[in-house]
Amino acid sequence: MAKTAARQPVPARRADAERNIAAILEAGMRLLSADPTASVADIAKAAGVGRVTLYGHFPSREALVDAVLDHAVGVADAVLADDSLDTEPAPEAMARLLRSSWEVLDRHRRLFLAADRVLPTERIREHHEAPLRRVERLIARGRHEGDFRTDLPLGWLVTTFFSIIHSAAQEREAGRLGAVEVEPVLVTTMLSLLTANG
Amino acid sequence: MAKTAARQPVPARRADAERNIAAILEAGMRLLSADPTASVADIAKAAGVGRVTLYGHFPSREALVDAVLDHAVGVADAVLADDSLDTEPAPEAMARLLRSSWEVLDRHRRLFLAADRVLPTERIREHHEAPLRRVERLIARGRHEGDFRTDLPLGWLVTTFFSIIHSAAQEREAGRLGAVEVEPVLVTTMLSLLTANG
Repeated sequence: MAKTAARQPVPARRADAERNIAAILEAGMRLLSADPTASVADIAKAAGVGRVTLYGHFPSREALVDAVLDHAVGVADAVLADDSLDTEPAPEAMARLLRSSWEVLDRHRRLFLAADRVLPTERIREHHEAPLRRVERLIARGRHEGDFRTDLPLGWLVTTFFSIIHSAAQEREAGRLGAVEVEPVLVTTMLSLLTANG
Repeated sequence: MAKTAARQPVPARRADAERNIAAILEAGMRLLSADPTASVADIAKAAGVGRVTLYGHFPSREALVDAVLDHAVGVADAVLADDSLDTEPAPEAMARLLRSSWEVLDRHRRLFLAADRVLPTERIREHHEAPLRRVERLIARGRHEGDFRTDLPLGWLVTTFFSIIHSAAQEREAGRLGAVEVEPVLVTTMLSLLTANG
């Protein structure tokens, strides 16, 4: 370590570290989305870094899965960014947000399952703060415009979105929901929850 | 081990083992329901057995939490057994089942959180097979009698019950739902999900 430090100027080392971290997160997202049991060694190999380097950045498989999930949610949130969420009627915007959220969650379903195995649900939810803010803004607008119910707490309705879409991922993985069933089931479930007169 | 075996007849050893297992499961349920981070050593001590004995029955903390959860769900399921679930109108029966399920889940909320930290959601769900059969029977009856919707798969409606009541436990623990809020929120949420015309 000291030897390398002596040979390499600091900015180059920092750039190396950043490149390695980016490669590890990309490889982790790809491998865990295919197989939730992918090992640290598999991910290091796919990222083209040594295990020692990987453990230098992520001291345990749990820390690695945590970082990969955070990275994947960041990528997903960029996909969900869409100005018409703020303008089209709230029920239509909700159906569209559900469909695009499901599309991206389904693609990374096994990464979510890998996270579910090693992280508390509360931690997984923390990583979803940015997309859940979009959900919250949309539900709040729907309530304000009279399309969505106001007899249940706003925070609880946001939680049901998180909970129901992740349940769908479990059901899909367990084969209890078919590939083509999920979208209409999610839209029907969430819209009847949001629009029912309590 | 061999020495003990020579001294003690087999049935006595088996009875000892059964007594130890029962004491470990009871202590585990009590300690983990108070503190989800309770250690194996704490649970062994409270059960009045040595750590070696405990590890002889449960080779890891994960295996112990898994067994304690199974034990607790068995106790809970006995509480939920109630013939009027099969006779009173389905919406009223559902409200009552939600209230009694929440009462028992709330009491063991931290045990559920301990399980959530070390077990996959799919595994936690497997442990709930018996109470979820009650939920399924009631929803099926409500559909048959015209009280509950039939435009969503029965299995999915059962999943939403499991998912929503466990989300409420997370929300309660995180302080996002108050103690008195949970019951009415659960009943309103689940009944509007079950009775909405999709």
